[in-house]
Amino acid sequence: MPVSLFSSPVFSDLYSDADLVLRLDEDADLLHMIRFEQALAKVQGALGIIPDEAAEVIVSTLETCEIDPIALCEGTRSAGIPVPALVASLRKIAGDDAGSWLHWGATSQDVMDTALVLQAKSCLDGLEERLGRLIDTLETESVRHANQLLAGRTRSQISTPVTFGYRIAQWAHSPIDAEADLPDLRKKVLKIQFGGASGINSAVVPDGPRIAEALAKELKLHFSPSWHTNRSNILALSAWLQALTAGLAKMAGDLILLGRSDIAEVSSGTGGGSSTMPQKANPVQAEAILTLNTIVQTSAGGIAAAASPAEERDGARWPLEWAFLPQMLIATGAALRHAQALADSMSANPERISAGFKNHPEIMAEAASFALAKNGVPRGEAKDIVAKAASQADFKSTLKELAPNGIDWDTVLDSATVIPACKEMTAEIFARRTR
Amino acid sequence: MPVSLFSSPVFSDLYSDADLVLRLDEDADLLHMIRFEQALAKVQGALGIIPDEAAEVIVSTLETCEIDPIALCEGTRSAGIPVPALVASLRKIAGDDAGSWLHWGATSQDVMDTALVLQAKSCLDGLEERLGRLIDTLETESVRHANQLLAGRTRSQISTPVTFGYRIAQWAHSPIDAEADLPDLRKKVLKIQFGGASGINSAVVPDGPRIAEALAKELKLHFSPSWHTNRSNILALSAWLQALTAGLAKMAGDLILLGRSDIAEVSSGTGGGSSTMPQKANPVQAEAILTLNTIVQTSAGGIAAAASPAEERDGARWPLEWAFLPQMLIATGAALRHAQALADSMSANPERISAGFKNHPEIMAEAASFALAKNGVPRGEAKDIVAKAASQADFKSTLKELAPNGIDWDTVLDSATVIPACKEMTAEIFARRTR
Amino acid sequence: MPVSLFSSPVFSDLYSDADLVLRLDEDADLLHMIRFEQALAKVQGALGIIPDEAAEVIVSTLETCEIDPIALCEGTRSAGIPVPALVASLRKIAGDDAGSWLHWGATSQDVMDTALVLQAKSCLDGLEERLGRLIDTLETESVRHANQLLAGRTRSQISTPVTFGYRIAQWAHSPIDAEADLPDLRKKVLKIQFGGASGINSAVVPDGPRIAEALAKELKLHFSPSWHTNRSNILALSAWLQALTAGLAKMAGDLILLGRSDIAEVSSGTGGGSSTMPQKANPVQAEAILTLNTIVQTSAGGIAAAASPAEERDGARWPLEWAFLPQMLIATGAALRHAQALADSMSANPERISAGFKNHPEIMAEAASFALAKNGVPRGEAKDIVAKAASQADFKSTLKELAPNGIDWDTVLDSATVIPACKEMTAEIFARRTR
Amino acid sequence: MPVSLFSSPVFSDLYSDADLVLRLDEDADLLHMIRFEQALAKVQGALGIIPDEAAEVIVSTLETCEIDPIALCEGTRSAGIPVPALVASLRKIAGDDAGSWLHWGATSQDVMDTALVLQAKSCLDGLEERLGRLIDTLETESVRHANQLLAGRTRSQISTPVTFGYRIAQWAHSPIDAEADLPDLRKKVLKIQFGGASGINSAVVPDGPRIAEALAKELKLHFSPSWHTNRSNILALSAWLQALTAGLAKMAGDLILLGRSDIAEVSSGTGGGSSTMPQKANPVQAEAILTLNTIVQTSAGGIAAAASPAEERDGARWPLEWAFLPQMLIATGAALRHAQALADSMSANPERISAGFKNHPEIMAEAASFALAKNGVPRGEAKDIVAKAASQADFKSTLKELAPNGIDWDTVLDSATVIPACKEMTAEIFARRTR
Repeated sequence: MPVSLFSSPVFSDLYSDADLVLRLDEDADLLHMIRFEQALAKVQGALGIIPDEAAEVIVSTLETCEIDPIALCEGTRSAGIPVPALVASLRKIAGDDAGSWLHWGATSQDVMDTALVLQAKSCLDGLEERLGRLIDTLETESVRHANQLLAGRTRSQISTPVTFGYRIAQWAHSPIDAEADLPDLRKKVLKIQFGGASGINSAVVPDGPRIAEALAKELKLHFSPSWHTNRSNILALSAWLQALTAGLAKMAGDLILLGRSDIAEVSSGTGGGSSTMPQKANPVQAEAILTLNTIVQTSAGGIAAAASPAEERDGARWPLEWAFLPQMLIATGAALRHAQALADSMSANPERISAGFKNHPEIMAEAASFALAKNGVPRGEAKDIVAKAASQADFKSTLKELAPNGIDWDTVLDSATVIPACKEMTAEIFARRTR
Repeated sequence: MPVSLFSSPVFSDLYSDADLVLRLDEDADLLHMIRFEQALAKVQGALGIIPDEAAEVIVSTLETCEIDPIALCEGTRSAGIPVPALVASLRKIAGDDAGSWLHWGATSQDVMDTALVLQAKSCLDGLEERLGRLIDTLETESVRHANQLLAGRTRSQISTPVTFGYRIAQWAHSPIDAEADLPDLRKKVLKIQFGGASGINSAVVPDGPRIAEALAKELKLHFSPSWHTNRSNILALSAWLQALTAGLAKMAGDLILLGRSDIAEVSSGTGGGSSTMPQKANPVQAEAILTLNTIVQTSAGGIAAAASPAEERDGARWPLEWAFLPQMLIATGAALRHAQALADSMSANPERISAGFKNHPEIMAEAASFALAKNGVPRGEAKDIVAKAASQADFKSTLKELAPNGIDWDTVLDSATVIPACKEMTAEIFARRTR
Repeated sequence: MPVSLFSSPVFSDLYSDADLVLRLDEDADLLHMIRFEQALAKVQGALGIIPDEAAEVIVSTLETCEIDPIALCEGTRSAGIPVPALVASLRKIAGDDAGSWLHWGATSQDVMDTALVLQAKSCLDGLEERLGRLIDTLETESVRHANQLLAGRTRSQISTPVTFGYRIAQWAHSPIDAEADLPDLRKKVLKIQFGGASGINSAVVPDGPRIAEALAKELKLHFSPSWHTNRSNILALSAWLQALTAGLAKMAGDLILLGRSDIAEVSSGTGGGSSTMPQKANPVQAEAILTLNTIVQTSAGGIAAAASPAEERDGARWPLEWAFLPQMLIATGAALRHAQALADSMSANPERISAGFKNHPEIMAEAASFALAKNGVPRGEAKDIVAKAASQADFKSTLKELAPNGIDWDTVLDSATVIPACKEMTAEIFARRTR
Repeated sequence: MPVSLFSSPVFSDLYSDADLVLRLDEDADLLHMIRFEQALAKVQGALGIIPDEAAEVIVSTLETCEIDPIALCEGTRSAGIPVPALVASLRKIAGDDAGSWLHWGATSQDVMDTALVLQAKSCLDGLEERLGRLIDTLETESVRHANQLLAGRTRSQISTPVTFGYRIAQWAHSPIDAEADLPDLRKKVLKIQFGGASGINSAVVPDGPRIAEALAKELKLHFSPSWHTNRSNILALSAWLQALTAGLAKMAGDLILLGRSDIAEVSSGTGGGSSTMPQKANPVQAEAILTLNTIVQTSAGGIAAAASPAEERDGARWPLEWAFLPQMLIATGAALRHAQALADSMSANPERISAGFKNHPEIMAEAASFALAKNGVPRGEAKDIVAKAASQADFKSTLKELAPNGIDWDTVLDSATVIPACKEMTAEIFARRTR
């Protein structure tokens, strides 16, 4: 076991994600905090709240400054957050005169929350791009496999025929919802945090709102009243990551089933080997998506626990967001990466699929049942006839024997008749894409 | 311990909710299922998919039929869902001829999911009304207490002065977000489910989409492609309930702290007695909200586990929605009811609050620190002066002694100066209400 | 959706359990509370702490008294717990004189927690009996199928041959652990709770410990210092239920896979029908176990949240035990019942299994690889030879061709050679049973 | 936000733990894997299963070998586990001849699970030592504060007097249970894993059991049949960590309440500063314990999800143990470290405590109520008298006025009378310690 699957040199290519890690690591985090302090000084200078020269010095000296994360460790241990130590360092960098005006009217949470939001924004950019590409691929593949029949399975049993193209569309359905939710999500989540000590900007009365608005504009975030103890936006982000990853896990779970040695109707991914069984081609990427999904769903419990903070600031619940949100973001990113690899490499095995249909003629039982009903056989009786036929060696002959004359069983039992319905439903699913 | 807090005759007034239970109980559930079958027959009759007379018979015989839930128990045990037994009963009621056309082209999940959505719709109506009323009350109370100072507390320590009105606005902040999310939520959640056996309406080709659209209109739901294995909407509902209840728990937690015997700055609710301590007035309603919130947040894990169903239908994950969603809906309703009772009965104790300010003059430390900084004392030095003063018996005198001349300490240390800032931030929070 | 799957007349035969419900319902709960008050009076009378006659009156009048749960609803709503209302009722029943001595020195939590423990004890009795019977059946079935080969599957891929008997032993492995843990669990969990208002028996100084010891003996529980805020025993019970149900879910999940239409190597349970597909035989019981397992695992989060109570009593966390523990107990009982039904009805399909072996000769790849290694082929090279053979039409011929002479491939590739190893490991697993 | 609180250079002194990280990092993990392969070769050599010389070469060449974790990344990405790549490297190190005999009859899971168990063993050693020390300190402090009265609080309201010594004993109660569970836990958890490809040691028939026993002895672990798909021991470890950390969180939560600015009856820890409020002394360590506890409890959900693995090996559930178990171990270690710091630095403020008693004479309400009852006042009436007195300015005078004569109110209302009861209960708690 590694300390963290997300930072482990051994496991990180599997469960972590280099791109997301870059957007979330210490350097990125501290840079966002520094950018917050620069932006604050800049807008306070422009609004005449702090001296213009101080603002300029702060902006310019902080532009190129480098803070060693390790230097903040001791201060973080003592304060519970890195901001006091960081601000002290930045004040030194800005010099005594300008430094006194740095972090003017802000509180640690303003810095931490805004940096978190900027990290989230960067991650959403990355995730959106991947999500769009995945849906594109799924759409292409869905079209490509629009005529490839597949046994539908409900509750683990063969049900009625569908197409592989339709199954792929089902995999895209929930990701399409996630994609459609993104613009709203950005509005909800990406909010400036600026409230000062107790959330009312008491140190900069009456300029709080003006500063917050200018700061939001400067950092390309949405304006909001201070939200120190209203974590709706973090919950919304968490819920979005949950929904997206759950959707990817649906696809991954299906691909594992379809790729079992004993089914083998669809292959995907680059199978992983075994240390003792030479023939094995384990569905490593699909399994990883399932693992990552459980990590995301489990972690969401920590975000929920952070959502009822006490009084003006809650030092015990707030850090849960830092504990679980990065895991969720990285895991979602890694799951999208694996899903793309699976989507890119999916390949149906028509022979195996056909063999399955031949072995399971009862896959047409619903069609037979409706044909009987349309021809005047009461539903209960129709059901019995079909169930009896399904238990016999020759499904079609038994049906013919037991059913009233005049039904064209060759047409009724032709599984290809579902293809138009599959195409129709597939089209409806992709038509919901608004991008 | 009772079998279920939500159906227990002993505990239900505390943790359950009579109104929500009515919207969710067996009778309501079965009625929605029957309404689905009626609506299906009606639209299929109108579209010429089933015989007109059959449709009429189904609609009229089902209108007044009564199904005893217990009669479905055996069939549910055997099929895992009540629909096959229910449909069999309804077919008997409609008679052999019409009965054969009942449930035409539908699958059990169409019935169950649509009934669930109709239940959810009814619950959302109830919850929305309560939520609106709660926010109204909080706004009124916030205004009423706009000038009542209160010690802000961050990380359990007294921070800077705020007003009770602002604290109340913080309690409203997350509920206002929940209220604002409702229109979108309804669009996402309240979708018709109609897909047939494997989700492609194979039994009614090519009429699936037409039926689904008409059915949506008939049942006043939104149209959607079949979502048998895309549970985004259930997740969205769950997330909304989580966010709302978390917000109520923030208020409840704060009220418990403010109402502790040793703080007693705000009282609320009708305190519960003890079996052995005559003086006790326990914060029963606020505690119940916290309990209910944990129930909601915990239950959400079950909904998340249902969100990656296998293949065309997943018989193991799907029922998790029935296990956890009703609990979440009822718990949220009960929490709103208790929150309303608390909001209606909140009463500040100005004497206790004033005494607290007197005992903690260091509550003005931030203000003192900024006054020093504005008067040219470097931030580090200012911090030291204030910290030193805070550790002395007489805060103001020590400050005067250590600070440069010319600062009007009476004004700086007047806690009432925060009132305008509190009003401003309060106004911003309530201005976000779009209703 | 029903209000609760555990009290729903429609769903209760599937997800609930009549026997467990009897052990947990209001009547059982109140009876345990009344028995606590009787036992308390009895031992306090015997110890001379309350008047002997009062004790006798309390014991006798409470013996046959009946309390209507609904009558406690109002008092429970007000106090957050039913005990004050119950004690008031019982005092009336005992009469003024004796009534004053009823509940002497006890607090509500003493009554509630002891009743909970007595309920748990009763449930453990029921669960233990079922668990023992299930393991018995699994052992019998394991022996019966000791020579029935089965394809082992690791990570969804066919691995090496095992026997069905060994697979059944794997299903028993975790239940055997749970059974072995029961004696210790009972010692940990089944403790008297008697601490009075703040846990120190201050109202009956110095008799607290004597009373607690006598009370434990009277109620056949273990003695313990008061554990109002130490919930280790509840956590231990929750963990045991989690482990047991997780084990049952392993069996259920495997049976669903083995019973898929496209595998069909083992059938079990009485398959449930579909409302539209006449041929379907859904694995309803196995699915229910999976559902119940997720309910148990999810609910455990609520128990964990209750385990860090504040100060001398926590009114917000404590009720979480009543919300989640009954669900866990009932769900575990229902899962055991379904597991028994599956174990009783399991039936292997040797023809399907043999066909699978024939289609997947590479199941002997590990054996081939070790045969090569034992005959001097370096491991890497051996792996390559076997992998190549596995990709060819005729596994054995290719191996013969590529391998050094002198290997008896008929013996090496005979899957029946694993039977003794399976029997050995099976025997080891069942030998761990200590009962 | 950092990628992981446990590996972050900024946050690790607060939420992580250097000692635990050393026991869990990549180097430790790989070393345990290598030790497994050495031990396997050694015992197989000794048992004559592999050539003696090969065993010797393997043992000696692996003794000093160094594996760069990064070198395993690519292989891990491809196989889902590092073992195939590691074994390939180790075979090169051992040379062709001996290398062929390395990992003989083992599967990747044998290596991974045994290494996990060895890591767990090492962590338990570290945690046990800390736990013992913490309980020692709590016992010392409990004795030291045995006569220091403290207001008991139930459900946030002042209840009856207790002592600070007793409160400390309550904090030790659950840790004492955890300590007592350790010997059994070690027996359950620390088991050799050796089962080969499908758990039956098919490649080394009939030597599997002999090898497993010798291997257990060699690695100082307990013998067990293969437990590839029986995760009871991992669940047991998880449950123990949950119970222990929950107990620490009870202490931390109480200390935060006792140390609030507005209570300030007990101080502890080294308070953390604020970036804008000079006077703040935030309870950073106690808050960190609460955060870590939620991390532990949340993570347990991931371990539970891993406990029902499919078939002979489950590639999607198994890695959840690596994702969550290290977090749980480190978080528990960090929580113990903070708890020790709090226990070492706790200091009561008798003046504040006395002032609280003076302001809340109704803390003696239960005592008054029992005094009345003992003197013949019916319980209901007694309760009313006391409640009335509690609502008046002068509790004692009102009681005297309303009560029958002959009660020595000075004695009855002397809070110090609870001290012996507190000492008694404290002694009972610590007497349960068996170490």
